[in-house]
Amino acid sequence: MYLKLRDNDTIAAVATPLGEGGISVIRISGKEAFDIADKIFIGKGKLGELPSHTAHYGKVVDDEGRFVDEVVAVTFRNPNSYTCEDVVELSCHGGYLVTQKVLQLSMIAGARLAEPGEFTKRAFLNGRLDLSQAEAVADLIHSQSEAAYRSSVRQLSGVLSREIKAIRDELLNLVSLLELELDFSDEDVEFANRGVLADRLENAIGNTETLLSSYSIGKIYKEGVRVTIAGKPNAGKSSLLNALLEEDRAIVSPIPGTTRDTISESMSMNGVLFRLTDTAGLRETADLIEHEGVERAEKEAGQSDIVLLVMDCIELDYNGTEPLYDKIADLCSSKGIRLLRVWNKIDLYSTQAPRKISSDQTYFISALTGEGIDYLKKGLFDVMLNGQFDESSVVVTNGRHREALERAGKGLSLALSSLKEGKSGEFVALDLRAGLDALGEITGEISTDDILENVFSKFCIGK
Amino acid sequence: MYLKLRDNDTIAAVATPLGEGGISVIRISGKEAFDIADKIFIGKGKLGELPSHTAHYGKVVDDEGRFVDEVVAVTFRNPNSYTCEDVVELSCHGGYLVTQKVLQLSMIAGARLAEPGEFTKRAFLNGRLDLSQAEAVADLIHSQSEAAYRSSVRQLSGVLSREIKAIRDELLNLVSLLELELDFSDEDVEFANRGVLADRLENAIGNTETLLSSYSIGKIYKEGVRVTIAGKPNAGKSSLLNALLEEDRAIVSPIPGTTRDTISESMSMNGVLFRLTDTAGLRETADLIEHEGVERAEKEAGQSDIVLLVMDCIELDYNGTEPLYDKIADLCSSKGIRLLRVWNKIDLYSTQAPRKISSDQTYFISALTGEGIDYLKKGLFDVMLNGQFDESSVVVTNGRHREALERAGKGLSLALSSLKEGKSGEFVALDLRAGLDALGEITGEISTDDILENVFSKFCIGK
Repeated sequence: MYLKLRDNDTIAAVATPLGEGGISVIRISGKEAFDIADKIFIGKGKLGELPSHTAHYGKVVDDEGRFVDEVVAVTFRNPNSYTCEDVVELSCHGGYLVTQKVLQLSMIAGARLAEPGEFTKRAFLNGRLDLSQAEAVADLIHSQSEAAYRSSVRQLSGVLSREIKAIRDELLNLVSLLELELDFSDEDVEFANRGVLADRLENAIGNTETLLSSYSIGKIYKEGVRVTIAGKPNAGKSSLLNALLEEDRAIVSPIPGTTRDTISESMSMNGVLFRLTDTAGLRETADLIEHEGVERAEKEAGQSDIVLLVMDCIELDYNGTEPLYDKIADLCSSKGIRLLRVWNKIDLYSTQAPRKISSDQTYFISALTGEGIDYLKKGLFDVMLNGQFDESSVVVTNGRHREALERAGKGLSLALSSLKEGKSGEFVALDLRAGLDALGEITGEISTDDILENVFSKFCIGK
Repeated sequence: MYLKLRDNDTIAAVATPLGEGGISVIRISGKEAFDIADKIFIGKGKLGELPSHTAHYGKVVDDEGRFVDEVVAVTFRNPNSYTCEDVVELSCHGGYLVTQKVLQLSMIAGARLAEPGEFTKRAFLNGRLDLSQAEAVADLIHSQSEAAYRSSVRQLSGVLSREIKAIRDELLNLVSLLELELDFSDEDVEFANRGVLADRLENAIGNTETLLSSYSIGKIYKEGVRVTIAGKPNAGKSSLLNALLEEDRAIVSPIPGTTRDTISESMSMNGVLFRLTDTAGLRETADLIEHEGVERAEKEAGQSDIVLLVMDCIELDYNGTEPLYDKIADLCSSKGIRLLRVWNKIDLYSTQAPRKISSDQTYFISALTGEGIDYLKKGLFDVMLNGQFDESSVVVTNGRHREALERAGKGLSLALSSLKEGKSGEFVALDLRAGLDALGEITGEISTDDILENVFSKFCIGK
């Protein structure tokens, strides 16, 4: 739980990633940042008396005056800092032990260890960022694809905030009109024409729904597209995986833990991450129809956005009676998963029969020669993103925002119904207010401790 | 290979650890550091025109002018920087992708990716650090125990350098005297009394040997003490491991890869790291005398500094005929490994017989009740470090230094022999020069490309 009273003390944390490197940065923020830093830093002058935005070489000493490390201290005086508070950043040598020592000394000198995201939380509380921008900071740090990075940068710049603000401003106007009317209710005046109000409200609802619908693509930007490659043994699943990866291997981050599952590989198209999972385990099973084999394939496929069903062209001749294929097709249609049928090994087949033509749902390829791979890749991209991929449009990438937009949409729709049914302005205003509050949660104009805890607990310590 | 001509260009690298955190720092160093930074950084003014040691909020843009991240740029004008060159440090958000983007942009703008240790190498080449201090930087970053940290900090402060310099100065005086004599060789003068020269040379040799002998303890400071716990199944090896760790669990770094071997644990005593390995695998083998079991124990024990041979007190009664114990004792004595015999389970035994008294080689303990554990711990520490543990003395921790000191010692001893045998000053001076050069390699007063490559290739990129 975040306690309001804790927002006034001075916090410290390692702001750089943990590990070994040339330097690490310990950030100290709060009213006593300079006093605390001056207890452990010895340079040419007191940091508290030096100008803001200046860097000073010196040493950190422990509470017995013993040398701990040589550091560079950078001063930021409020409100011109990341948190809008007084901030000192100490760059020490980037070893784990020495970094922890400097951090601990700052705590002995009076700082409290920062909670996850607490620096950014203070930036929010002090008005430097709104809540959606604060969330964009975390998204930016965690982004693993160009699309995720780009959408977080756009959100950080405030495009989503401006869009939300525009809708809220319009709604606030409508509410004001209705509430003004209520003040004069004795006089039975109608300040606002009901038809005009309804039009303006419908327009606001439309804008809210546009944002809401962008979440389907925003989620793809942020999390990527999960693709499962399914099929019978020897259909060429692994060859297809390799063929897809060949030219466009993903920039995969070397952060431990991101590639634990060795049969998953990533590639990026137009900056969007595609996580390809080969259901390789199935190859061990001699009879695919066997219960457990199908179950595994189903589980993998059931968590996907797209299933690539790889089949051997040789099967084209006894088309349509394969229980595995039917099961996969049923699974996809029941879960709304896109299914692309991929007939592999046309290099073998094409000599025997007329050329097959790929379509949006069915592809003829050779993983061996690479024939048809580019077209399949385009299909993979288009089936998820066609017509929606527009880097310049405002996109919602955050589940919390989507949920708030849904609530806003509901409130506004109720208001519209009441309005159309000629209900009293009181009712309409109540629902409008609910919608307004939901929208306000996105940017943090409306916030509770719960909302803030939910947002900032997902950050790492030091941000 | 380091090429001299490359030391003039401008280099860039991520100076902070790789991974995710609040911020990452990209360091750019060299003649064009400001020009390069100004191509990608947009703030209130040109960094090249702003004062040294100032911090500036702004944004990094790509080569098409697109926003990449918000950053703080800190300026360091030569010679007042880590490298003594012009340096710009850009603090961007600490995500992997965005950090790489800023680094890549600095390279597109003209910087070259720094080689491992190249910033520190430049600091050395520009006279800011000597070579042993540069090595201390790497040791400081990698230090995993208080003792390793302390010795690297002392080396960084230059205590070793001063010690080496004192010996070299004395030797330079001796060489000068001898060489002066050679210049006047026609006149057959003896400038320096041979007895006084020999005394002074012996003194220098003594100082060199003192340094050399400190390596045994320096290595322990730096790398810790490897302890293998051996014994028969059910002797209580794992219980002993747990009892030793209980009160004094080591500060183990969370850096991936340091604790892969799950049967090794670390503890620290007086800041010295003890790595305890339980030969747990042996427990699977029913008959310990079995060939492979013994082989495994031998392999583990053979790489240790200390072997703790754990035996069940019950065996005290049929003392002395256990082939496993004999094998282990032989192994230790042949490899110079310290062997401590630990009789466990005195809680069971003490009721039946008179109390046994522990000695430096033999300990009576109960891993269960904790009896005797403290005394055993003291024994572990003393057997490696007794009488040698003095944090204030100058200690050699580096294998390269040890090797140079050995060569120096040989050269000086040869010189001393020649001197005592009354050989010509020419011969004496030649060997003295060899000793001087070897000592000079430690601080880098004498250095070759090979030496520098050997030293700096062990650094991480970004330092």
